[in-house]
Amino acid sequence: MGGWAIAVHGGAGVDPNLPMERQEEAKRLLTRCLDIGISALRSNLPAIDVVELVVRELETDPLFNSGRGSALTENGTVEMEASIMDGPKRRCGAVSGLTTVKNPVSLARLVMEKSPHSYLGFSGAEEFAKKQGVEMVDNEYFITQDNVGMLKLAKEANSILFDYRIPTVGTCGAGAAAMDSPLQMNGLPISVYAPETVGCVVVDREGRCAAATSTGGLMNKMSGRIGDSPLIGSGTYASELCGVSCTGEGEAIIRSTLAREVSAVMEYKGLNLHEAVDYVIKHRLDEGKAGLIAVSKEGEVACGFNTNGMFRGSATEVGFMEVGVW
Amino acid sequence: MGGWAIAVHGGAGVDPNLPMERQEEAKRLLTRCLDIGISALRSNLPAIDVVELVVRELETDPLFNSGRGSALTENGTVEMEASIMDGPKRRCGAVSGLTTVKNPVSLARLVMEKSPHSYLGFSGAEEFAKKQGVEMVDNEYFITQDNVGMLKLAKEANSILFDYRIPTVGTCGAGAAAMDSPLQMNGLPISVYAPETVGCVVVDREGRCAAATSTGGLMNKMSGRIGDSPLIGSGTYASELCGVSCTGEGEAIIRSTLAREVSAVMEYKGLNLHEAVDYVIKHRLDEGKAGLIAVSKEGEVACGFNTNGMFRGSATEVGFMEVGVW
Repeated sequence: MGGWAIAVHGGAGVDPNLPMERQEEAKRLLTRCLDIGISALRSNLPAIDVVELVVRELETDPLFNSGRGSALTENGTVEMEASIMDGPKRRCGAVSGLTTVKNPVSLARLVMEKSPHSYLGFSGAEEFAKKQGVEMVDNEYFITQDNVGMLKLAKEANSILFDYRIPTVGTCGAGAAAMDSPLQMNGLPISVYAPETVGCVVVDREGRCAAATSTGGLMNKMSGRIGDSPLIGSGTYASELCGVSCTGEGEAIIRSTLAREVSAVMEYKGLNLHEAVDYVIKHRLDEGKAGLIAVSKEGEVACGFNTNGMFRGSATEVGFMEVGVW
Repeated sequence: MGGWAIAVHGGAGVDPNLPMERQEEAKRLLTRCLDIGISALRSNLPAIDVVELVVRELETDPLFNSGRGSALTENGTVEMEASIMDGPKRRCGAVSGLTTVKNPVSLARLVMEKSPHSYLGFSGAEEFAKKQGVEMVDNEYFITQDNVGMLKLAKEANSILFDYRIPTVGTCGAGAAAMDSPLQMNGLPISVYAPETVGCVVVDREGRCAAATSTGGLMNKMSGRIGDSPLIGSGTYASELCGVSCTGEGEAIIRSTLAREVSAVMEYKGLNLHEAVDYVIKHRLDEGKAGLIAVSKEGEVACGFNTNGMFRGSATEVGFMEVGVW
């Protein structure tokens, strides 16, 4: 065992023109979340508790696209989804179509532990939430002025807002190569903030891996759209060997069963974590579509993406710590 | 290329006391569906069209648990889900929480081809169905008297009705070993009909693989419950190499990302289709939980299950044809 390790992400695919102060704000939030996770790991909390704790923090802060600050549907409402998976017994829980549950990741955990099912959606999930007594709020709580503006922009462009995809196959610390390639929408460079899916992966001192992912989905998505984040094997996966959380264009991640692939090539091809992440990003994923974070039971941490940037942070017990965007 | 091949299933986990006339009725339906698929393959329809055609037939017939004849939720309503996947480009579509769409598999196909997303659920999926102009019916259309009786039994036993799980690791033609081990519910032997998920996998003469799965889910399930059938990589998967459709306890299939595993061990371990199906059933799946059907681009067909029986049929261009229950 190599001690604990943790990684968090705030989404793959970053606006090349994202103002520096928003970049710094994102890095501060990722650092705060890492600190919360590190502190919990030092107190010997199990991996599954740590991923839930960290994702709750990300959901509660409006900066990224989950919980408060979620992207809006074409109707201007919020429909959130999340999943969580515990490596040792591959137990899992998932939720979709939440409109009033303050912390979707915690409801996913309750589905895993307190329901006979693994995945609940929409009004049935809300009913379950009420019975479990979790904190519920009005849908308005989740809606931020930033996102109202983003939806307006998306509707004017008549598109689903996910266009920060200049392919720059990246690994952690890959540099800011794409910064001088601004994308356009409706003939204008995009310089608005692009909120994205959040996730956390953790291996604790006992070598137990866990993963959790939470999202509001795509801006201007159709009501009822389900992405990769709640799908075990696509957006989230954990096994005896590793924990993985993905982010990016859900449809591409689903086609690639991306989170499961990292563990599969470790199991079936004998790759280590870093090799597995590289393999999956290069050989399983369409260009410019997504990224992921991963930990192994040996205490390794890795991330990879082929989008234009990914908000991420990682740390290990032996003292490594990194927070990056590009 | 080994020519076309097709397999269909009507669910894994069969009541050991299932009356012989219901067994015969199931075999007749499976045979009819095989004949429809074979005829379409002889007319050179692509694999993706054939799986849709066959699953539509299974949804329209009330015998199995999909479309008309779907299992009922705890509220006595029907909530259906389905998915479809085309191997060559790994395109996919999925739907959940349908209450008025006559043929869920065809809506999954439309999600794949006519929406910007891969997966739509509940009222948003119904809205999309209306816009696409698919045939819609009242929820009552899907409810059969058999299932009303089954729900009553499940409620009396205070359980979700999925208990036909005497582990008998099986392959096609494994015999009727478990027939003398009746299960009980509330102290009584079960002798009611257990309707189950349907699916179809096809490889056409061009070597293109496709898969589709459709279900009403578990009898007495919570409203909002999502199972494995709509989840790409869990209940359904198709790639350049193979097509797979699973059936059984959804929660176990999701934990195992079962459908993707068949293709993964072919890709990463170099197994052939039969070895891959055996490996996945023995090493990835909890005892007594599920089964699957699969075809490969070489025109092979295979099935495997570790439940007490699986309704299934298969045929190949070179003249093999088999329909079985135990």
